[in-house]
Amino acid sequence: MATTKTPDATRRSERSRRAIFDAALELVGEVGYDKLTIEGIAARAGVGKQTIYRWWPSKAAVLLDAFTADAGDTENVLPDTGDLAADLKLVLRATVDEFNDPKFEAPYRALATAGANDRELSEQFVAKLQDTGVKAYVDRLAKAKEAGHIAEDVEVRIAVEMLLGPFTQRWLMRTGPLTYDFTDTLVDLLMRAVTPR
Amino acid sequence: MATTKTPDATRRSERSRRAIFDAALELVGEVGYDKLTIEGIAARAGVGKQTIYRWWPSKAAVLLDAFTADAGDTENVLPDTGDLAADLKLVLRATVDEFNDPKFEAPYRALATAGANDRELSEQFVAKLQDTGVKAYVDRLAKAKEAGHIAEDVEVRIAVEMLLGPFTQRWLMRTGPLTYDFTDTLVDLLMRAVTPR
Repeated sequence: MATTKTPDATRRSERSRRAIFDAALELVGEVGYDKLTIEGIAARAGVGKQTIYRWWPSKAAVLLDAFTADAGDTENVLPDTGDLAADLKLVLRATVDEFNDPKFEAPYRALATAGANDRELSEQFVAKLQDTGVKAYVDRLAKAKEAGHIAEDVEVRIAVEMLLGPFTQRWLMRTGPLTYDFTDTLVDLLMRAVTPR
Repeated sequence: MATTKTPDATRRSERSRRAIFDAALELVGEVGYDKLTIEGIAARAGVGKQTIYRWWPSKAAVLLDAFTADAGDTENVLPDTGDLAADLKLVLRATVDEFNDPKFEAPYRALATAGANDRELSEQFVAKLQDTGVKAYVDRLAKAKEAGHIAEDVEVRIAVEMLLGPFTQRWLMRTGPLTYDFTDTLVDLLMRAVTPR
């Protein structure tokens, strides 16, 4: 059997992969992680379940790839214009838009709550997705600290948690609206905490 | 039929009530909210399920009362020694102890995640429990603001979210340890953000 695919086969594979990802994200938002099955994903994607099992060992693996493919590399590096507050506000406003979009937020909510109840899923999954996002902020703040825009004694990781924790909490527990005003205020307060005196 | 109970009957009722609360909190931590049933609570508590249905219309109602009874009124008012940072550190250290105690954290985790996936439960339940806790902090910070220890332009509610959001996130997503050092650092950073210049 040939190990190299024809261009047509590659296109078909890519189409199937995309259909599987879309199906997985839709379904987990609709039925929750517990009730998600490979069979269900296959049916929704219009592929055989063998196609899925050939590429991924579990539903968790499919979802992890689906989320990573969707997020692309866009979240891994924050902009750096030299104006930390402006950069943070820009990125958080984009995040507000994302979390107010049911297409994005439903699967993410299903996973976040499944992860909270399932330590193994959490470690392999929520931690991986979440850490990628957190790391981009940590890196940006670390650069600002090197540049002298953040006080020497500030623990950058904790500062990032003070920025993202309130956002994630409001979203997950629906304790308040996710608005630009909210995230701008968070950034302004954080800047007062971290800016050298 | 008499509407007044004898002292013995009152004691028996109180004992049953306590047994039902303990059973509900244990069980929700063990099996999760979805699989929790009135029948299961009754069996664990050693009471008939009619006893439960006589007092509560649903499992959500039982749990809400069980949590409220457990929390007592202790969390509704924060200490006020005049030293805001010291008061916040004291309360948050006690909260660290609570959330590191499996007996407390397992049912709370089950409820928090069930609430995140179920808007109605969330509104009636997570919001009610959570708002009580948040309100105590908001009240304490509002008093500090009146006393001039917090800058005029600080939105007290957002400041509280910056304090509690990172804590709840670490706990729920297991993204870091809950330690006194962590909560002390949160308080120190927050004080830098809110203290008048």
